[in-house]
Amino acid sequence: MTEAAWIAAAEAAADVAGAVIRPFFRAAHGIDAALKEDRSPVTIADRTAELAMRAVLAERCPDHGILGEEFGLQRPEARLRWVLDPIDGTRAFITGRPIFGTLVALLEGDRPILGVIDQPVTGERWVGVADQPTRFRGPFGGRPGCRACPDLGAAELSCTSPAMLNAEETPRWRRLADRVGRVSWGGDCYAYGLLALGQLDIVAESEMKPWDWAAIVPVVEGAGGRVTDWQGRPLRADGPGQVLAVGDPALLDQAVALLR
Amino acid sequence: MTEAAWIAAAEAAADVAGAVIRPFFRAAHGIDAALKEDRSPVTIADRTAELAMRAVLAERCPDHGILGEEFGLQRPEARLRWVLDPIDGTRAFITGRPIFGTLVALLEGDRPILGVIDQPVTGERWVGVADQPTRFRGPFGGRPGCRACPDLGAAELSCTSPAMLNAEETPRWRRLADRVGRVSWGGDCYAYGLLALGQLDIVAESEMKPWDWAAIVPVVEGAGGRVTDWQGRPLRADGPGQVLAVGDPALLDQAVALLR
Repeated sequence: MTEAAWIAAAEAAADVAGAVIRPFFRAAHGIDAALKEDRSPVTIADRTAELAMRAVLAERCPDHGILGEEFGLQRPEARLRWVLDPIDGTRAFITGRPIFGTLVALLEGDRPILGVIDQPVTGERWVGVADQPTRFRGPFGGRPGCRACPDLGAAELSCTSPAMLNAEETPRWRRLADRVGRVSWGGDCYAYGLLALGQLDIVAESEMKPWDWAAIVPVVEGAGGRVTDWQGRPLRADGPGQVLAVGDPALLDQAVALLR
Repeated sequence: MTEAAWIAAAEAAADVAGAVIRPFFRAAHGIDAALKEDRSPVTIADRTAELAMRAVLAERCPDHGILGEEFGLQRPEARLRWVLDPIDGTRAFITGRPIFGTLVALLEGDRPILGVIDQPVTGERWVGVADQPTRFRGPFGGRPGCRACPDLGAAELSCTSPAMLNAEETPRWRRLADRVGRVSWGGDCYAYGLLALGQLDIVAESEMKPWDWAAIVPVVEGAGGRVTDWQGRPLRADGPGQVLAVGDPALLDQAVALLR
């Protein structure tokens, strides 16, 4: 298979996930339905979308492994592995905010070489490929490419929720937050997409699983940014889930010095 | 003038604001431009949109007063007063999140009798009129109407940012947050719109100016919810800026008991 075929497979998987997910967005009009863990619309959408993505990828890439949040790992021995998160940003989805995302990544060993961040409601899509410029399309404008921001004091920092930081991480994160220009909340994978459009400068989060960050790495790095853990090291599947993304690589050491 | 003419004027004001604002969304690709207070794109968009709205309303409703965040109060003696916020959710706008809003309200004395929440990028619009069902249109689905949620433990709570709560308010807000089902962050006026679509149950915020909350009251109350201060009293222009919105009126006393 060629790289173009992998990209086409990733986009086809994102397409089918969106088709499954869209009808469930803002469809629950009862608190009971929204809160039940197993039978909630978000759970049904999540599981069904992952099955649909697995079917698309298995048909197009029968030799590849597949890891998804809901249905585990198929073909653990494969060198190339898809990593899937049908709905990243469950709370955004549940509350009707169109800023969750579907994540599709392809890893070669531990290295993410392809990532798609797709917003199925707005129609925005980021496609990142290792060593290539990130592509973006969507109806609201925005150009791919991180912005220059060498000065930490001018940086725009984002985090999905203070609740994702534990008691040990909170003061470290706060040290960083106290030194940046501004902080905003919410966003999940969408925030990394905004960083890749030059709208944010730093995202620092925790509790991130491989399916949360794998697709983000090629998107951000293809836009000129960097994605590491809070020590500045490459992310690892067995790591603590602390993710740091910077749009301007000059921010990396400054942010790590405060988060470390 | 008839009520229909007021609604048409409010929608025309929102239309012109959107036309001014849209070209500035995600247009700043430099941190310097984004951070400068006086000459930033968001400031230019905000001020220009308010002037455009004032022109539309002055032409259609020459006897009405107009209060806006940027250009103060015209005709303070008028019984009917427009209250405008061209970009509610400055941080969302600056960071490229399409969940800020344009707010247009009409007050009779202290009472908001008409409110428009407009999202000029997504094309979503809520129109609330006193004693009428709230209307909503937009491309992402959603039906106007708050949902039933009499049980605080099942409620979905939202707040734009922990930074809007001062040291005295934070523990009061936290008492409420500890009793609800889930908390999500971000949203500004958009969160009140989601409450009016039955997607959220409670929004509790502070630091709110009259132009932040005036339009929200008719939208939420026309959808079956309630908007008060943290004591359960009607909001007042000279109040402390603490706003509580509930989708199910049965939640009001429970929330006030914790926030008070």
